[in-house]
Amino acid sequence: MSITHTCPDHFTPVPLEKCYRLMNHGPTVLVSARHGGEDDVMAAAWACVLDYGAAPKVTVVLDKATRTRELVEASGRFALQLPCVAQAGLTVAVGTHSAKDMPDKLARLKVPMFAAQGDDLPLVQGCVGWLICRLLPEPHHQHTYDLFIGQVEAAWADERVFSQGRWHFDTAPDDLRTIHHVAGGQFIVAGASVQG
Amino acid sequence: MSITHTCPDHFTPVPLEKCYRLMNHGPTVLVSARHGGEDDVMAAAWACVLDYGAAPKVTVVLDKATRTRELVEASGRFALQLPCVAQAGLTVAVGTHSAKDMPDKLARLKVPMFAAQGDDLPLVQGCVGWLICRLLPEPHHQHTYDLFIGQVEAAWADERVFSQGRWHFDTAPDDLRTIHHVAGGQFIVAGASVQG
Repeated sequence: MSITHTCPDHFTPVPLEKCYRLMNHGPTVLVSARHGGEDDVMAAAWACVLDYGAAPKVTVVLDKATRTRELVEASGRFALQLPCVAQAGLTVAVGTHSAKDMPDKLARLKVPMFAAQGDDLPLVQGCVGWLICRLLPEPHHQHTYDLFIGQVEAAWADERVFSQGRWHFDTAPDDLRTIHHVAGGQFIVAGASVQG
Repeated sequence: MSITHTCPDHFTPVPLEKCYRLMNHGPTVLVSARHGGEDDVMAAAWACVLDYGAAPKVTVVLDKATRTRELVEASGRFALQLPCVAQAGLTVAVGTHSAKDMPDKLARLKVPMFAAQGDDLPLVQGCVGWLICRLLPEPHHQHTYDLFIGQVEAAWADERVFSQGRWHFDTAPDDLRTIHHVAGGQFIVAGASVQG
């Protein structure tokens, strides 16, 4: 599948030492991967920051039934990206249908893809944050718990809603808020900001 | 430290197969543990569901500098609980001060504790969800990544805001919404519900 290298508007680099702040508040993610010319994207509610600083890391749970997991294991790379309110339906769709049953899943579901300059990982347009990760192989945990660890190599955000290391949900369009899956396609939307 | 076994009002059991829904939307948690008569509570933004069903599991990252981690390692048990808006200040306080520097931390910070009937794990009053976990020892991941895995043995929620396996933020008092840490004491509050 050929993918445009034209990045979406507002696609802005996030310094590595700040990228944990994209995921610190627990959003649901889309996981994408590419291997052998094949792309896939799935949804995952079970993704989490594992470390910050100069070598930020994330965890994500990838079920053995998913094609995306096989692409991650084969390529050793994946991207996590944060869908927003406008993409709630898309998130349910890519999380419900498997490329194993629907080989043309991304085309059928009209998932708009792009790639960053100098990279070939498929990224989803319209998200509000993106993290490209290198798999840190941990076979025991992958096999026993379906738990995958990635070291973040690059990150971006939609500058309208995340800049200077902070989310700006209160001032950005509401459609750009992150979504946090509960169950059965119901999401909690990121709300107001409070200082503790 | 003696702890009351009088449970807070609205403290209601959550069936194990539904307990993942307490954490699925990515809230910040308070981690508590007890060993040798010593209790501690810390805050953790990096906690996540690992598995659901009859043997639900969670992950939580516990820094080596924390006393709570030592109590977890010594006792093999811990609790995760979900602070709400009303507890944002308390969450920052228990996440900032260490029992290593402040031995009477829980008393000094006036953290209101209780324990469930038949159990001695210290739980925090005023939270909106509680999960008691048995540590599944994984020394490599604990040492290398500070990553701890727990199997949930019992769970409860404040029935005003979580019942029938769902959050009811839209109808419950706003102070009972979960909080999701970004950085520096700033939290995103759980907002509206949308269906994808």
